[in-house]
Amino acid sequence: MEKGQLLYEGKAKRLYTTNEAGVLLVSYKDSATAFNGEKKETITGKGELNNAITSTLFQELHRVGISTHFIRKISSTEQLVREVSIIPLEVVVRKTVAGSLAKRLGLEEGMILNEPIVEFYYKDDSLGDPLVTTEHIRLLQLATPEELDVLKTDALTIFQHMHDYFHSHHVRLVDFKLEFGRTSTGDILLADEISPDTCRLWDETTNEKLDKDVFRRGLGNLTDAYQTIADRIGGTIA
Amino acid sequence: MEKGQLLYEGKAKRLYTTNEAGVLLVSYKDSATAFNGEKKETITGKGELNNAITSTLFQELHRVGISTHFIRKISSTEQLVREVSIIPLEVVVRKTVAGSLAKRLGLEEGMILNEPIVEFYYKDDSLGDPLVTTEHIRLLQLATPEELDVLKTDALTIFQHMHDYFHSHHVRLVDFKLEFGRTSTGDILLADEISPDTCRLWDETTNEKLDKDVFRRGLGNLTDAYQTIADRIGGTIA
Ligand SMILES: Nc1ncnc2c1ncn2[C@@H]1O[C@H](COP(=O)(O)OP(=O)(O)OP(=O)(O)O)[C@@H](O)[C@H]1O
Ligand SMILES: Nc1ncnc2c1ncn2[C@@H]1O[C@H](COP(=O)(O)OP(=O)(O)OP(=O)(O)O)[C@@H](O)[C@H]1O
Ligand SMILES: [Mg+2]
Ligand SMILES: [Mg+2]
Repeated sequence: MEKGQLLYEGKAKRLYTTNEAGVLLVSYKDSATAFNGEKKETITGKGELNNAITSTLFQELHRVGISTHFIRKISSTEQLVREVSIIPLEVVVRKTVAGSLAKRLGLEEGMILNEPIVEFYYKDDSLGDPLVTTEHIRLLQLATPEELDVLKTDALTIFQHMHDYFHSHHVRLVDFKLEFGRTSTGDILLADEISPDTCRLWDETTNEKLDKDVFRRGLGNLTDAYQTIADRIGGTIA
Repeated sequence: MEKGQLLYEGKAKRLYTTNEAGVLLVSYKDSATAFNGEKKETITGKGELNNAITSTLFQELHRVGISTHFIRKISSTEQLVREVSIIPLEVVVRKTVAGSLAKRLGLEEGMILNEPIVEFYYKDDSLGDPLVTTEHIRLLQLATPEELDVLKTDALTIFQHMHDYFHSHHVRLVDFKLEFGRTSTGDILLADEISPDTCRLWDETTNEKLDKDVFRRGLGNLTDAYQTIADRIGGTIA
């Protein structure tokens, strides 16, 4: 597989074409950003860790029968994925109150919800990725009502699996953000990444934060936290 | 009917008990506030105008068979209403893009929507009245799913009537915010007010703003704008 031209450079990853149609190469970067890019740092080792962790988690989803864009890990910082057309919605699932949900509703961080909830945010950096309702989504024609149902159902199923998987490794999955895309045949496929950049992960005993909040809130060494996750799930050998 | 003790002093109105159980007296104040109370001014005549306009609009709703908390206007600044237990949701209906919707979604103010949309905001000043989704509402138990359906359906019906009514007076109803309450028998009833404080109203020909945006955005004399609305709908004689 040959790496082609750079298609897109994001805050955390670079996307390249390959010599195979419909296959992209994702290269994970050593950079951390927060607050819509306002806080930014180079963090050596982060790219390797996220590539390892995401690869392990996508393989775990395949094992339980859930399709994703992931094809295979090809180097310490690179993986191959199926190209999709990203639906511009961040699909957030939460089982424990944290972050913007605590702020928005005035709830205590750490409160466990009876049922997980799903939120949609409009992927638009210039607008600050605002929360949107299903009526806003319909108005902007970001997804059809049928697609929205699929996104919600799939996100909840994926959350349930990932929640149980992390639990078996002594980690609490507090919430996560997923991105889905449309394939050339119109199917909806999980894309992007599942990593400590896009999940809140707390040690089950101590509630120690093992995710990007370590960077956002300046709580310590980010690679140490991500390495702990990689070690627990065996991600370094994926 | 005798005015009893002050029950609640809000930013725009005072609520008093009366000698009749279940009946409250609402007194409209001469004050204007915006941005969650940050901007504040005394505006002589505003209380009278809002009392007149709200009374006219509630009577108009009664005329077409829609119940509201309104009983009758008893003085230039006062009216009697049925006491309800307010549901802590601001129910917003929009047919033209303006204000926070323009900001949130990056849409041009003035764009007309194909279908009106309904939004819910959590009535909590300390949180800044945040937008909430139906899942947030369920989580906070602010209203049951059945109640939410009623709120949405009623709000749309009321909007349609008010839209046509204003149109017959050469005014465009851009959007409005309603509050509903539960009666002692568990019914849901339209409460609070419908006035230039809670509606966006534009002259149909010139798009001149005839509502609280005149105050929020410093566009001119507020009482002149409200007087125009009162004159057009004949509100001064209600
Ligand atoms: N299978 C895929 N096909 C096409 N694009 C993808 C795929 N998976 C992820 N992407 C997109 O690739 C980009 C990954 O880069 P990165 O995560 O660094 O972006 P970002 O800085 O988070 O910015 P944004 O997500 O707002 O574009 C994202 O835009 C993501 O939506
Ligand atoms: N029929 C009713 N019975 C009981 N309360 C009502 C009724 N109609 C309106 N209210 C409440 O009375 C108050 C009116 O005061 P005002 O509009 O000045 O409040 P406000 O400053 O807007 O603050 P807030 O609405 O956030 O309490 C509101 O709290 C409103 O919800
Ligand atoms: Mg990203
Ligand atoms: Mg009010």
